Amino acid sequence: MIDTKNLTQLGTQVETPQSPEAAVLETVPFSRGDGPPAIVRFTCPEFTSLCPVTGQPDFAHIVIDYAPDSALVESKSLKLFMTSFRNHGAFHEDCTVMIGRRIVAATKPLWLRIGGYWYPRGGIPIDVFWQTGAPPEGAWLPETGVAPYRGRG
Amino acid sequence: MIDTKNLTQLGTQVETPQSPEAAVLETVPFSRGDGPPAIVRFTCPEFTSLCPVTGQPDFAHIVIDYAPDSALVESKSLKLFMTSFRNHGAFHEDCTVMIGRRIVAATKPLWLRIGGYWYPRGGIPIDVFWQTGAPPEGAWLPETGVAPYRGRG
Amino acid sequence: MIDTKNLTQLGTQVETPQSPEAAVLETVPFSRGDGPPAIVRFTCPEFTSLCPVTGQPDFAHIVIDYAPDSALVESKSLKLFMTSFRNHGAFHEDCTVMIGRRIVAATKPLWLRIGGYWYPRGGIPIDVFWQTGAPPEGAWLPETGVAPYRGRG
Amino acid sequence: MIDTKNLTQLGTQVETPQSPEAAVLETVPFSRGDGPPAIVRFTCPEFTSLCPVTGQPDFAHIVIDYAPDSALVESKSLKLFMTSFRNHGAFHEDCTVMIGRRIVAATKPLWLRIGGYWYPRGGIPIDVFWQTGAPPEGAWLPETGVAPYRGRG
Amino acid sequence: MIDTKNLTQLGTQVETPQSPEAAVLETVPFSRGDGPPAIVRFTCPEFTSLCPVTGQPDFAHIVIDYAPDSALVESKSLKLFMTSFRNHGAFHEDCTVMIGRRIVAATKPLWLRIGGYWYPRGGIPIDVFWQTGAPPEGAWLPETGVAPYRGRG
Amino acid sequence: MIDTKNLTQLGTQVETPQSPEAAVLETVPFSRGDGPPAIVRFTCPEFTSLCPVTGQPDFAHIVIDYAPDSALVESKSLKLFMTSFRNHGAFHEDCTVMIGRRIVAATKPLWLRIGGYWYPRGGIPIDVFWQTGAPPEGAWLPETGVAPYRGRG
Amino acid sequence: MIDTKNLTQLGTQVETPQSPEAAVLETVPFSRGDGPPAIVRFTCPEFTSLCPVTGQPDFAHIVIDYAPDSALVESKSLKLFMTSFRNHGAFHEDCTVMIGRRIVAATKPLWLRIGGYWYPRGGIPIDVFWQTGAPPEGAWLPETGVAPYRGRG
Amino acid sequence: MIDTKNLTQLGTQVETPQSPEAAVLETVPFSRGDGPPAIVRFTCPEFTSLCPVTGQPDFAHIVIDYAPDSALVESKSLKLFMTSFRNHGAFHEDCTVMIGRRIVAATKPLWLRIGGYWYPRGGIPIDVFWQTGAPPEGAWLPETGVAPYRGRG
Amino acid sequence: MIDTKNLTQLGTQVETPQSPEAAVLETVPFSRGDGPPAIVRFTCPEFTSLCPVTGQPDFAHIVIDYAPDSALVESKSLKLFMTSFRNHGAFHEDCTVMIGRRIVAATKPLWLRIGGYWYPRGGIPIDVFWQTGAPPEGAWLPETGVAPYRGRG
Amino acid sequence: MIDTKNLTQLGTQVETPQSPEAAVLETVPFSRGDGPPAIVRFTCPEFTSLCPVTGQPDFAHIVIDYAPDSALVESKSLKLFMTSFRNHGAFHEDCTVMIGRRIVAATKPLWLRIGGYWYPRGGIPIDVFWQTGAPPEGAWLPETGVAPYRGRG
Ligand SMILES: [Ca+2]
Ligand SMILES: [Ca+2]
Ligand SMILES: [Ca+2]
Ligand SMILES: [Ca+2]
Ligand SMILES: [Ca+2]
Ligand SMILES: [Ca+2]
Ligand SMILES: [Ca+2]
Ligand SMILES: [Ca+2]
Ligand SMILES: [Ca+2]
Ligand SMILES: [Ca+2]
Ligand SMILES: [Ca+2]
Ligand SMILES: [Ca+2]
Ligand SMILES: [Ca+2]
Ligand SMILES: [Ca+2]
Ligand SMILES: [Ca+2]
Ligand SMILES: [Ca+2]
Repeated sequence: MIDTKNLTQLGTQVETPQSPEAAVLETVPFSRGDGPPAIVRFTCPEFTSLCPVTGQPDFAHIVIDYAPDSALVESKSLKLFMTSFRNHGAFHEDCTVMIGRRIVAATKPLWLRIGGYWYPRGGIPIDVFWQTGAPPEGAWLPETGVAPYRGRG
Repeated sequence: MIDTKNLTQLGTQVETPQSPEAAVLETVPFSRGDGPPAIVRFTCPEFTSLCPVTGQPDFAHIVIDYAPDSALVESKSLKLFMTSFRNHGAFHEDCTVMIGRRIVAATKPLWLRIGGYWYPRGGIPIDVFWQTGAPPEGAWLPETGVAPYRGRG
Repeated sequence: MIDTKNLTQLGTQVETPQSPEAAVLETVPFSRGDGPPAIVRFTCPEFTSLCPVTGQPDFAHIVIDYAPDSALVESKSLKLFMTSFRNHGAFHEDCTVMIGRRIVAATKPLWLRIGGYWYPRGGIPIDVFWQTGAPPEGAWLPETGVAPYRGRG
Repeated sequence: MIDTKNLTQLGTQVETPQSPEAAVLETVPFSRGDGPPAIVRFTCPEFTSLCPVTGQPDFAHIVIDYAPDSALVESKSLKLFMTSFRNHGAFHEDCTVMIGRRIVAATKPLWLRIGGYWYPRGGIPIDVFWQTGAPPEGAWLPETGVAPYRGRG
Repeated sequence: MIDTKNLTQLGTQVETPQSPEAAVLETVPFSRGDGPPAIVRFTCPEFTSLCPVTGQPDFAHIVIDYAPDSALVESKSLKLFMTSFRNHGAFHEDCTVMIGRRIVAATKPLWLRIGGYWYPRGGIPIDVFWQTGAPPEGAWLPETGVAPYRGRG
Repeated sequence: MIDTKNLTQLGTQVETPQSPEAAVLETVPFSRGDGPPAIVRFTCPEFTSLCPVTGQPDFAHIVIDYAPDSALVESKSLKLFMTSFRNHGAFHEDCTVMIGRRIVAATKPLWLRIGGYWYPRGGIPIDVFWQTGAPPEGAWLPETGVAPYRGRG
Repeated sequence: MIDTKNLTQLGTQVETPQSPEAAVLETVPFSRGDGPPAIVRFTCPEFTSLCPVTGQPDFAHIVIDYAPDSALVESKSLKLFMTSFRNHGAFHEDCTVMIGRRIVAATKPLWLRIGGYWYPRGGIPIDVFWQTGAPPEGAWLPETGVAPYRGRG
Repeated sequence: MIDTKNLTQLGTQVETPQSPEAAVLETVPFSRGDGPPAIVRFTCPEFTSLCPVTGQPDFAHIVIDYAPDSALVESKSLKLFMTSFRNHGAFHEDCTVMIGRRIVAATKPLWLRIGGYWYPRGGIPIDVFWQTGAPPEGAWLPETGVAPYRGRG
Repeated sequence: MIDTKNLTQLGTQVETPQSPEAAVLETVPFSRGDGPPAIVRFTCPEFTSLCPVTGQPDFAHIVIDYAPDSALVESKSLKLFMTSFRNHGAFHEDCTVMIGRRIVAATKPLWLRIGGYWYPRGGIPIDVFWQTGAPPEGAWLPETGVAPYRGRG
Repeated sequence: MIDTKNLTQLGTQVETPQSPEAAVLETVPFSRGDGPPAIVRFTCPEFTSLCPVTGQPDFAHIVIDYAPDSALVESKSLKLFMTSFRNHGAFHEDCTVMIGRRIVAATKPLWLRIGGYWYPRGGIPIDVFWQTGAPPEGAWLPETGVAPYRGRG
């Protein structure tokens, strides 16, 4: 049985954390068994942060793949963590990588990658792709298949 | 046989006109015969003009449907006309309608409509749809089927 | 049983006709029974003709819908007829409508429409849509659903 | 409760009927209640028959919409009926309409339409669309949305 | 301000109702103001019930459009209602219409329609489309755009 | 020439308004000329507000079509207005209609419609479609073509 | 000829097993011949289980690829096994891997992988990808091509 | 010039073979020249066989890639061979591999692979992928890109 | 500056060559600089030739990728070359490879590949993929992404 | 904190540079931390230049991927740089590679690649793919997924 007694957010009405610093990524134990690691993918099409220069909202579609070792991200805490960027200002590149590093710090996975597909500014969208290293040997890791930006027509 | 002796641009190396005013839309005679009018569609994914306020380039995908009466737009002159907006400044709404009115003036069609699908500015694309009236009775007029804008994801 | 004894092309090795004039559209009897007319659609993605001015090849994707009365187009003769435009020069608008009129003449249908989706020249494709009148009352006539031209991206 | 005691095929191991004539379309009672009729759609991508001239197999994707009055088509009997065309020879137009008429005869619906989307022969696929009359007033009848044939590329 | 004091399920941990009869569709007051009615669409891709004959699970993708008058469906109660069919046996046609009628009974809308897109059995999926009458005059009601079933390839 | 001297936001660095009430929708004069009205479409895939009950973020893709009479929405003010919902709590139905009514109040168009496509909650997304009346006679108003929600697979 | 005499479920009316433990995965002998192993893919878009914490239904689209050695999964027993999760509570990660391990235990394949594409909860869908090791050398294993989740718009 | 004098089926009216055993796969000589082998792909969306247990029809979409050495499959004989399975009973896995092995026997290619995408039974489609070994070094072998099965919605 | 003085076709009105033998592939000098070679892709959806046995037209969609060394294909001469197959008879496999070899002979590239996607005959389209060797190390060579043939539905 | 004091274009109203030579690509410092490099993708569907021979406009959809070392491209300067090609004449191959080399010169990245998808001329679009070397080890670099050109139908 899964040990959930340390969780403070799951099954409780909790406030949205006001900043990424205030958000707590919680975990549940994972027993990965024999063979190559499993890959777990979170797709987050509801993400918004602020431009660090102008303070105007930015939007992104975020995809996270990781290979958990002994801890899974508890998904409600992940949702609250993602929500906590709502009033946070950062450049696209820094923001994307920071999300990845926070999940690494919380779960100490065998491997993690993150893709941030940001909405266009000045007619040009920016995508940021980062991973902690080459994917684990023998694991199955499909492409994300996110559609390319195409403008109009 | 089609009378093309009045055409000054087709089959000749001509300069790109420097403004819509300088461009000449030429026509060829059309015999529409019995029955409902034919509909002719031009799809122009290569269109650019300038923002009238900032002078920065704007881009659009333009679709034109018309029901010729006794004159067809000569297609090379149409291409040159569309190209002539390259250094022309206008708002999206005005620019789209102006293109439609110019073709009306040149060909006196039974009917015309134009759709301008402009690339996003400030995260919001603008589409402009204009026609000279209800489509002619009994004519076949398929939807344009231009894909909606979807941002990312 | 269907009377096919008048057919001269079906089931026989015949030469490709050298011009639309040389092609013969043959028919088979059709008994349309009670109720609204049936609609029959031919989709012809393999069509090529010549530019009447330069002699260079043009290509089109052609869709024909018709409501047969007492005669069906025999499909092998249709294929040969479409092939006969290979060395024929005509403008897109004239060529499309001519195909439609020839089938009307051969089968005397209750109604017919034709769409010609021509490949781009000068960056601008031309579509031509023509029909003999409003579609017959009570018949089912789905949209053709041909994808719009979109350039690149 | 639905009266199924007259059904001879449902819930029984039955042989595939060897011809459409041998197939029996069975029905179950339907109580359509107040308001506009319901529309029921069957999509049959597994259909094959024979060419009446050459005996070679033909394939089609068939879509049937009908507005049942007091009888529904029992779906296992429909499947067996569709299968019974496997060794039946008919032209596309006749075959499509015949399927529609058989279901009309069996269920006496308020209305029925059928679309046959046949695989290409000689590079040209044929679609056949037939219905018993204009769709019933006030009923909801979405388009079938079957993708158009496009050849290659 | 919206009066939610009568709601017994929203914001409370409630058990999944064991049958449609046990489920309670709750409503919240709606002030529809001037002009044509608004249309509200629920898309429910997570739906399962049982075959009334064999007891085996059936799956469907359900889309509901309605024009609320003075009451909105409270969405958590809708979710619980849809979930309550998990152990309920019914034919596709009856089940789809029953869901529609229950929402009509609970909210007394100006109008409602429901589409049930059932997963294939015997190679043939069944769709059921039902509405309470012609859509309200002047309202905007887009097509559902649900993709047609296509088998393989 | 277009009179822009009354505009207080365009071409100026302005703060994001903190609420819809604080946002000011500005307009520019529009001369609509002869014939049917033009239709202008804004597509806003970057929209977020708050749940009025739990305070958690909601996301939507919003499409607005209107027929301007003598005033166009100034697009920068529209963007700021849409952004002003970031800290605003409202139900999906009310929020969607409110945006539409605000633009009506600001521009007094001949007609307007708005579609709000909200991200799923509890596995069920909600769409809200509202318009001020039947679309203007003789105007061209394409479908929005927004893809239906499909869950997974 | 294939030896099916040990099969207890195929060709028999059997009850849906009430739990994964109660379900029996049966096999049929397979002779894989020379050369690299064949890959067999099952696509299961009809899958539902329960949340282990709240008891609410979860839904998933499951894809299984395996390289059989001397035993194939008998497909009716596979269907019954998948159905047996209907009242089973498990986290997405555990449930997905458990299905894979059960098929491994039953068929002792050369290799197996499983992908679970779960419907979104809290706006974030979870995918789980697991395999027993690197795919067998020389086998052909296409991507699953499951579409990515995209929210709305 | 290509030697076709041994061909007994091409250019002749031949009967459909009644079984795979009765079908003859004929070949034409191929000169593959310098460099890596060419890859030839046949796509066969019109395929049907019988269930070996129930005798009911099965349908599949079949894709064959091979690297010819000194013999090409003559395509009319391939078509007749595929047609010969119409009254043949076999399991999906065996049938798919058998087709591949027959083409190997007839043409002795450098390499061959075959994918069988079978229509769903019991809600679960089965795909079978088999090849004779790793693809030849230096050859170009694109993915087949066959769309995954998705059920409904 | 690019040396174009040897070109005899570019910028001149030239006749369509009557055979591939009569066509001249011209080149312009290319300076490929440091690093891995560039890849240049030509997509030719307008291609037609003749069946060498029956003389009937064949159609194909052709994609050519090459890594130029010191010479680029002059694109007008390429177009004329492709057009020259209009009256040329050849089997699909031979025709595709021949086009590739002619471009190799004319430009002596570091590497070249060609894909011919031929329209279906007898219900089965044929694709031919050929390349001169493994792609150059360190070059970027995306998949062509040509959609697979799918028949109907 | 990011040092932006050297930036001369960001946050300032600047003129569009009249040529690529006049455009200045500015950078901001980047700290790439441990592990494999991040990949940053710019998608530029709004690009136009001139044909060096005829002076007529060319259009392209450009995708740039790079692995920044210690400097990021400042995105407003990138936009101005791309805009500066509006009156610049160059062949597709040279133009594409030149853009890539300029970004390399400005940011000294670990690696860069560029894809230029040019609109068709003479019915044949040209794509140009160039990179500075093999992608960095351990980095995540998804395919661009740009749709292939398909002509009509
Ligand atoms: Ca920015
Ligand atoms: Ca603007
Ligand atoms: Ca022309
Ligand atoms: Ca419509
Ligand atoms: Ca474009
Ligand atoms: Ca036929
Ligand atoms: Ca059933
Ligand atoms: Ca199919
Ligand atoms: Ca809500
Ligand atoms: Ca689904
Ligand atoms: Ca969960
Ligand atoms: Ca989105
Ligand atoms: Ca089976
Ligand atoms: Ca052939
Ligand atoms: Ca050029
Ligand atoms: Ca095509």
